[in-house]
Amino acid sequence: MSPSIEDALGFFRLSCGRWRSQRSSHHLLHRRAEAGGSFIEVVELGLEDPRLRAIAELHGQDPAGLVGGCRVTWSGSMAWDKAGEAHEGESVFALIPHDERGRAGLLLRDRGYAETAPVAGHFAMDDRDELLLTTDYETMSTLERFRFSGPDVRLRTSTVQGLSNTASFCVETRLPAGGAGEVGAAARDPREKAPAGALSPLGW
Amino acid sequence: MSPSIEDALGFFRLSCGRWRSQRSSHHLLHRRAEAGGSFIEVVELGLEDPRLRAIAELHGQDPAGLVGGCRVTWSGSMAWDKAGEAHEGESVFALIPHDERGRAGLLLRDRGYAETAPVAGHFAMDDRDELLLTTDYETMSTLERFRFSGPDVRLRTSTVQGLSNTASFCVETRLPAGGAGEVGAAARDPREKAPAGALSPLGW
Repeated sequence: MSPSIEDALGFFRLSCGRWRSQRSSHHLLHRRAEAGGSFIEVVELGLEDPRLRAIAELHGQDPAGLVGGCRVTWSGSMAWDKAGEAHEGESVFALIPHDERGRAGLLLRDRGYAETAPVAGHFAMDDRDELLLTTDYETMSTLERFRFSGPDVRLRTSTVQGLSNTASFCVETRLPAGGAGEVGAAARDPREKAPAGALSPLGW
Repeated sequence: MSPSIEDALGFFRLSCGRWRSQRSSHHLLHRRAEAGGSFIEVVELGLEDPRLRAIAELHGQDPAGLVGGCRVTWSGSMAWDKAGEAHEGESVFALIPHDERGRAGLLLRDRGYAETAPVAGHFAMDDRDELLLTTDYETMSTLERFRFSGPDVRLRTSTVQGLSNTASFCVETRLPAGGAGEVGAAARDPREKAPAGALSPLGW
């Protein structure tokens, strides 16, 4: 069973580190599945980090409600990209819980994928310590479920409904500390296909 | 949002019909993902069906607790099979709820994948009407989560822990009534790769 996770901030802290992500994306209309992979790094940001306050203000939220946040960077390319073409990106997330236990509330980020306006997601942890994230964009809505299968494996199921309906699944395995440069290596290696940017509104 | 589903029998009734299944299987150690596809047919069995009573007795359960069951047939082949090599199979499932609402209890079947002894799974529906199924085999345990994304799309996430650790994801789309013979066509078409038998202890 997964470890007991106290709150959403705890869930994000468990997510910190370097991950290798295997993704499958299923296109419901085209009946196609695409595979990909990427490298992801998650770093916690302290409450004093000015980026968190800036994100809260960007969303019209009171920064006093912040409990923390993180910065996520990713690198990868889609299976349908030309060899060597890579997607890299970075996003900052801020958490503002709305309940006393810190298990439900707003997930704010500096940008959404394919949208210019900042978008707030709503998170809620269930009684199995899985984290559900729902986000409504102008043209689509997403539902994502994150689950730890032990401390070093994170599973993510996502559905996107809107202009195109897709369902995707990520298996993320923790990379050992150190070994810097793998992200760059992945981006250069055409065998490492990665859908990070293109498949999730979250981008990671 | 998914429709409101009263109980596990209702969930199984929604599953009745013919489905096309797209599957991705992720091998955590080998860091490989495999794609596949299969055709699945689910038919409800009436309470008077002698196969349901037989399954209850096989598991040492009182047949009076049965609320229903279904027969599942599948056809497909794995991506790593030789072209034309197909897996076909059939399994019968019986439901014995243990709560008053019929949302949690035992899922009995006539056989488990790769195990000769009959194995009982434990199901529980959560407050989002998703169905979780846990099964402990002698050499492995599985956790499966089923969710309807509308009446014609069913998503399934599975993890298998034991001899080999895999995580898989299925997107199942309902096929229109009629059009008989597609199952056979799929089995003959080497482009239709299907993991049904090999990837899920349930086999479907």
